[in-house]
Amino acid sequence: MSEVTRRSLIQTAAVAPLLAATASQAADPPTRDAAMNIDVFGFQHTPVPLPFDPKSLHGISEKLIQSHWENNYVGASKALNTVRGRLAQALADSNTPPYLYNGLKREQSIRTGSVVLHELYFANLGGDGKAPADLRTKISQSFGTYDRWESEFRKIGQGLGGGSGWVVLGFNEHLKLLENYWLADHATNPADTRPVLIMDMYEHAYQMDYGAAAPKYIDAFFASIQWDAVAKRLGG
Amino acid sequence: MSEVTRRSLIQTAAVAPLLAATASQAADPPTRDAAMNIDVFGFQHTPVPLPFDPKSLHGISEKLIQSHWENNYVGASKALNTVRGRLAQALADSNTPPYLYNGLKREQSIRTGSVVLHELYFANLGGDGKAPADLRTKISQSFGTYDRWESEFRKIGQGLGGGSGWVVLGFNEHLKLLENYWLADHATNPADTRPVLIMDMYEHAYQMDYGAAAPKYIDAFFASIQWDAVAKRLGG
Amino acid sequence: MSEVTRRSLIQTAAVAPLLAATASQAADPPTRDAAMNIDVFGFQHTPVPLPFDPKSLHGISEKLIQSHWENNYVGASKALNTVRGRLAQALADSNTPPYLYNGLKREQSIRTGSVVLHELYFANLGGDGKAPADLRTKISQSFGTYDRWESEFRKIGQGLGGGSGWVVLGFNEHLKLLENYWLADHATNPADTRPVLIMDMYEHAYQMDYGAAAPKYIDAFFASIQWDAVAKRLGG
Amino acid sequence: MSEVTRRSLIQTAAVAPLLAATASQAADPPTRDAAMNIDVFGFQHTPVPLPFDPKSLHGISEKLIQSHWENNYVGASKALNTVRGRLAQALADSNTPPYLYNGLKREQSIRTGSVVLHELYFANLGGDGKAPADLRTKISQSFGTYDRWESEFRKIGQGLGGGSGWVVLGFNEHLKLLENYWLADHATNPADTRPVLIMDMYEHAYQMDYGAAAPKYIDAFFASIQWDAVAKRLGG
Repeated sequence: MSEVTRRSLIQTAAVAPLLAATASQAADPPTRDAAMNIDVFGFQHTPVPLPFDPKSLHGISEKLIQSHWENNYVGASKALNTVRGRLAQALADSNTPPYLYNGLKREQSIRTGSVVLHELYFANLGGDGKAPADLRTKISQSFGTYDRWESEFRKIGQGLGGGSGWVVLGFNEHLKLLENYWLADHATNPADTRPVLIMDMYEHAYQMDYGAAAPKYIDAFFASIQWDAVAKRLGG
Repeated sequence: MSEVTRRSLIQTAAVAPLLAATASQAADPPTRDAAMNIDVFGFQHTPVPLPFDPKSLHGISEKLIQSHWENNYVGASKALNTVRGRLAQALADSNTPPYLYNGLKREQSIRTGSVVLHELYFANLGGDGKAPADLRTKISQSFGTYDRWESEFRKIGQGLGGGSGWVVLGFNEHLKLLENYWLADHATNPADTRPVLIMDMYEHAYQMDYGAAAPKYIDAFFASIQWDAVAKRLGG
Repeated sequence: MSEVTRRSLIQTAAVAPLLAATASQAADPPTRDAAMNIDVFGFQHTPVPLPFDPKSLHGISEKLIQSHWENNYVGASKALNTVRGRLAQALADSNTPPYLYNGLKREQSIRTGSVVLHELYFANLGGDGKAPADLRTKISQSFGTYDRWESEFRKIGQGLGGGSGWVVLGFNEHLKLLENYWLADHATNPADTRPVLIMDMYEHAYQMDYGAAAPKYIDAFFASIQWDAVAKRLGG
Repeated sequence: MSEVTRRSLIQTAAVAPLLAATASQAADPPTRDAAMNIDVFGFQHTPVPLPFDPKSLHGISEKLIQSHWENNYVGASKALNTVRGRLAQALADSNTPPYLYNGLKREQSIRTGSVVLHELYFANLGGDGKAPADLRTKISQSFGTYDRWESEFRKIGQGLGGGSGWVVLGFNEHLKLLENYWLADHATNPADTRPVLIMDMYEHAYQMDYGAAAPKYIDAFFASIQWDAVAKRLGG
């Protein structure tokens, strides 16, 4: 295919639905209610309830997912709200050295990542794990085969076992690539990338159910994927 | 304003143009030519030329910006291409332990961040530094005042002096917030965020012209901002 | 006290026992058997057994500590051995780009930190948690009071709850200071510092027993400290 | 050689001088004057002057090394002193959340690393770069050959070009291994390791003289090593 043809195809076919972000966003139950006329220093985040019945996951216990939601996600939300208040104070205080200000910005990055990634993670759980055919086709177009995608996604997860981090299938808006990414922690994200499918690999996501057996959790995660949410994020 | 009213405004007025990503993307001269039907393991990135006359910046020398482009950005692009080849080999080799695979994914994250952030940085340079009134208004809606935005953006930059990192004004697509972010390195990005204005604070962005005097570079950066590119990324 | 007098005291009284490292090292049961005539690329690490009865800890279960030892520590030891082999290959291969070599060096740092910190952690567990009076005096000399030391050590641990990292009381050999340090992960260590007391805050250190209740684990850790090991590391 | 014999050799021959830390420390001109009877929260660090004539380096300009000392090292020393004051305040304030306290501890780690590593770096500069025969022999015992050591040390440095970090030849006190380490930043150090030879790879160490040509700086560094300091750190 010529470069020109391919580019046209991208613009008319592939990219347009991929960037149907309003729909995708709206479909993540429930949506956020902040925007451009908000003072970001004063913004206070309200935790979003679990978007599924906590008893309904396939291989992740109600006890674990409730603890995960309450202790890790809600905790991060509260911390983020506190950090914003401290940032407003520190910026107004001319005695704040820039490196100490950045210490607070670092905390903001970590908590923001935790809030955003947890909400996206919970929103892509609660399904039956069966990827619809058109999604499998889309993914295989970027990864050669669907199995190659799944094997890389799982491998990254296994490598994070015993530590912390996330695995993300994301659409890099700048490079126009659908890729799997390894995230070392809440603050290590791919640049300019829309997350599409997210797997939490912090140990609190599985230790209570599986101890150190991270691969068993990865099986449970795959069995519980809510592929409708993934499809909407991908614009289909 | 009631929550319902505000949310409606967001959906009909603010969010829609903000997410006019195709236009924004296309306006970053030049655009990337990859998409969903690309095998991401085989994708090879081609460096984008500097989108301005390298003699035209206000306080950043031709010598520095050429070295920055060639050594740091083109170097990252070549490295990213090499890493993709190694990833394909490593994934096909069943003897690759997951933690070593992730060592390569980590390199991929770092080089991807370097390529994407450098392209966005160069694309928001080459202007006269004068922010149009409507952009100043937009920014002040999120930060209280335009000066408060600028003072935070500069402060983060000062705190990065003598080290590495980036300052990013970005629109968090998930939280629907326009915020300044501190980036420790190429791989530390805010989650699900569209970069709008980017300042490189690696020492190669200023040492050759200003030595350790990072604040002088920050002045030169502000004097050279191409605000049209910023406006297009913000959808206005 | 004059500066000269204080310095003399340091050299004759305080520093000498602190640096009695051979004794301290030898007392960590069991000792390592590598040294200067070892080819570091060929060195293979042998895991050290738990230096206490796994049923004897006060509030940390046998099941957890066995899993911790086997899955996390022994796993890190095996990974480190594999990484060394890959480093030898990569260094001998002139086609290895330096940034990919450093990807392996990064893995070496992470696994080395995991092996070393885990061995020191296990070696300061298995006791009754009662700090002898002379140790309490030593610690209070650096921290104002013993309680101030404990409150900082615990606070760092609480801040790591839900994530990853270590808390280390260490003697900075260069600054000659006994300080508490926050470690973000296995590779984030204080420079030129001898660890004295180490607390693992990765979630695998407590999730199986306490879920997200990190403070309960911190209590159990304090109740199980083997202070004799700490005293020997401090040279007293 | 049998394990028992080798271990005896280590204990009687190799390890003892290696751990002659008092001598080594005292030889680093000038020594630090803090110790166990210091309140670490109140400790204020005094910058150490450059231990060589700044005009005497072979390929590193007076202008650069003076700027490096004043802006980067002295700046870190001042920042560290400020951070200690903030830590004392924050610990005394019961409203300080642990994660915000750790934000300050993180800054303490970064500044401590910067102070310690810079002092060790300056102290191993100012020589003629000629490694004495007995040191070459010692190093070759750990690395197979002296050239293999140098080629790994240089390769790590090249991989850090364009970014930030340090290369450290260090003696791991716990594993009893003399190894080269890659450091991503001031806070990423090998666990329980005595630094022996240190090369700064932050861009402020070379950009002013060599722009992006990091390998030329590495040559200049090798030509300026003060091997006597290295020998004393190694206990010989």
